[in-house]
Amino acid sequence: MALCIGSVSFAQTTNVKEDFKPSEVNQPGKAFPQINSDGCVRAQIAAPEAKMVQLDIGGVKYNMVKDASGLWMGESAPQDEGFHYYQLNIDGASVPDPGTRYFYGAGRWGSGIEIPASDKEIYALKDVAHGLVSELNYFSVITKAWRRCFVYTPPCYDKNLDQRYPVLYLQHGSFEDETGWPAQGHANLILDNLIAEKKAVPMIIVMDNGYAFKAQDDAAGARPAMAFEEVMMQEIVPMIDARFRTLTDRKSRAIAGLSMGANQTMRIAMNNLGHFAYYGGFSGTANYPSASELNAEIFLNGAFNDGKKVNEQLKVLWLGVGTKEPEPFPGSIGAFRNMLDKQGIKYVFYQSEGTEHEWLTWRRSLFQYAQLLFK
Amino acid sequence: MALCIGSVSFAQTTNVKEDFKPSEVNQPGKAFPQINSDGCVRAQIAAPEAKMVQLDIGGVKYNMVKDASGLWMGESAPQDEGFHYYQLNIDGASVPDPGTRYFYGAGRWGSGIEIPASDKEIYALKDVAHGLVSELNYFSVITKAWRRCFVYTPPCYDKNLDQRYPVLYLQHGSFEDETGWPAQGHANLILDNLIAEKKAVPMIIVMDNGYAFKAQDDAAGARPAMAFEEVMMQEIVPMIDARFRTLTDRKSRAIAGLSMGANQTMRIAMNNLGHFAYYGGFSGTANYPSASELNAEIFLNGAFNDGKKVNEQLKVLWLGVGTKEPEPFPGSIGAFRNMLDKQGIKYVFYQSEGTEHEWLTWRRSLFQYAQLLFK
Repeated sequence: MALCIGSVSFAQTTNVKEDFKPSEVNQPGKAFPQINSDGCVRAQIAAPEAKMVQLDIGGVKYNMVKDASGLWMGESAPQDEGFHYYQLNIDGASVPDPGTRYFYGAGRWGSGIEIPASDKEIYALKDVAHGLVSELNYFSVITKAWRRCFVYTPPCYDKNLDQRYPVLYLQHGSFEDETGWPAQGHANLILDNLIAEKKAVPMIIVMDNGYAFKAQDDAAGARPAMAFEEVMMQEIVPMIDARFRTLTDRKSRAIAGLSMGANQTMRIAMNNLGHFAYYGGFSGTANYPSASELNAEIFLNGAFNDGKKVNEQLKVLWLGVGTKEPEPFPGSIGAFRNMLDKQGIKYVFYQSEGTEHEWLTWRRSLFQYAQLLFK
Repeated sequence: MALCIGSVSFAQTTNVKEDFKPSEVNQPGKAFPQINSDGCVRAQIAAPEAKMVQLDIGGVKYNMVKDASGLWMGESAPQDEGFHYYQLNIDGASVPDPGTRYFYGAGRWGSGIEIPASDKEIYALKDVAHGLVSELNYFSVITKAWRRCFVYTPPCYDKNLDQRYPVLYLQHGSFEDETGWPAQGHANLILDNLIAEKKAVPMIIVMDNGYAFKAQDDAAGARPAMAFEEVMMQEIVPMIDARFRTLTDRKSRAIAGLSMGANQTMRIAMNNLGHFAYYGGFSGTANYPSASELNAEIFLNGAFNDGKKVNEQLKVLWLGVGTKEPEPFPGSIGAFRNMLDKQGIKYVFYQSEGTEHEWLTWRRSLFQYAQLLFK
């Protein structure tokens, strides 16, 4: 009978493995949502008067089924390992699932779920020395707005008061914000674990917000100009160097970003090679979304035209992408790599096996990239 | 017509002042919920197929009204100034409002709203020097569990590397957690502003989680024993003193808490007077919920029996409560004050005008209490 209710319902079919466990990012004490060993998500919510409740995950809406007590339950098809944003739909209202903690992505604070990954140890909370993640509010003169960044300082930072540290500037993607890397990205745990195993140099990581628009004096309806590069170079970097015990030479500064952040930080790196010696593009490049052949003489004002010079200046040029990412990601990254090859520019290319344009790709990218920095 | 739908609907009555503005704690770009100058809350959500949608705030459910496009809207009665938790009910499902940021309280992550307060300047984000709020994960041997605290370090902490600072241990209430004070409590902004005006001494504030239970070897069904005092004294205080540049004498340590936290921290303070010289109880005391006369000879093992000694040991004994708080708060605090008076113990008593057992009472309490510390 349950199967009659929804056209795409997977609920209560005999194919669902009954080894569901609560998601790791559930609210304290909440039993649902759950995940089984196939990566199926099972949601549950009390909505006694509702006509239709759906689990909306991975671009698919799965009809849930109501029991006699008014409790709705339903399962998704298997999901990729890693972190996913999702929501519930209750009689047409798209709302967060009250069972989960909330994350900023897809342009909203909403539900997230964690499908245990084969390599989840790289971002697990382990009994190693832990760095701090510090929240810093600052007023930006360029944007005439309050902004916020999170700063990871390594475990030894508070002990070795006469030591200075290299800095990685690490950016989120579109419709995300400065909370992405410290929350669902687990940047702090990835570095804690790498530093404990001596696979990464102790470093500071600065995670800011890539959305920055020039304050406008006239409200003539003009679209506000993007100003993230100016905010980064004129406000964020000087503020971090003034407040934290940083090394300030170019060989002690790295920059990286994911998706939109990869695009932004590639521009920032290549426009400011006096300040950065390491670049990482996680699922993105500055030619996004085009897969067309790049002309090195004109792309980014010829920043990659002199391959020998780029090889001298960039100690690491790093690119990564998930094997399941859709276009335009593989195509635009491929076109960029072709240009690098043609110019004889060295780079590292990493593929995250079985992951989409999602956070497991980027956790793995940070894990790989951070090991190459400042060495 | 709209008025026919719900028995307690305030929607679209002529009494509602039409000067609504978005709440300060809305998600970026979200126009709803809104608040008018009477403190009425107006919520809005698209739920085209729903039969009944309610705004559930302050213990009252207000029926919302659907327009032709499937958008539901409704208003609450005037709310007290300050911060309130709330939720929406959609055909019987209690869910967060997708318009707001989310806060932990009432035992869940859910919606919050901020009714602008007459004295909101005390916790406003201003153009003054800002301290850091740092997140620290640590493993607790006593509870055999990962725990987390937030640590506020004052603006000068990163500059004056040879200076040590006094510490305030500041606790949340029941069904809240370590995020309460740094998020809805604005402890960092209150201190930033007080320090900028030289009304408070630069201090470190440690905000931990008051729920701590002894790890049990046998699962014989025994209720786990509360272990917060042991965690505080044996794990948190030593960890903070090892990691941060603290002053460690008793006159450089204060402790305070709200509601359940007031009860817990009074016990910790009085059991450990060798470690603390300042106590603050915000809307709570250790005799909660009883309003019965206290016998100083036996209450807390006679900790308040020798009034002269208590006066020597506690440099500040501070109590606060909101004038609108219901029983058992005024009664139990009153009984405690009667005992202090009888024993000749000096204390400060503060009343927050027009506020309930909610965060504006506690923001104001911190604002008052912090000015008296370490002087």
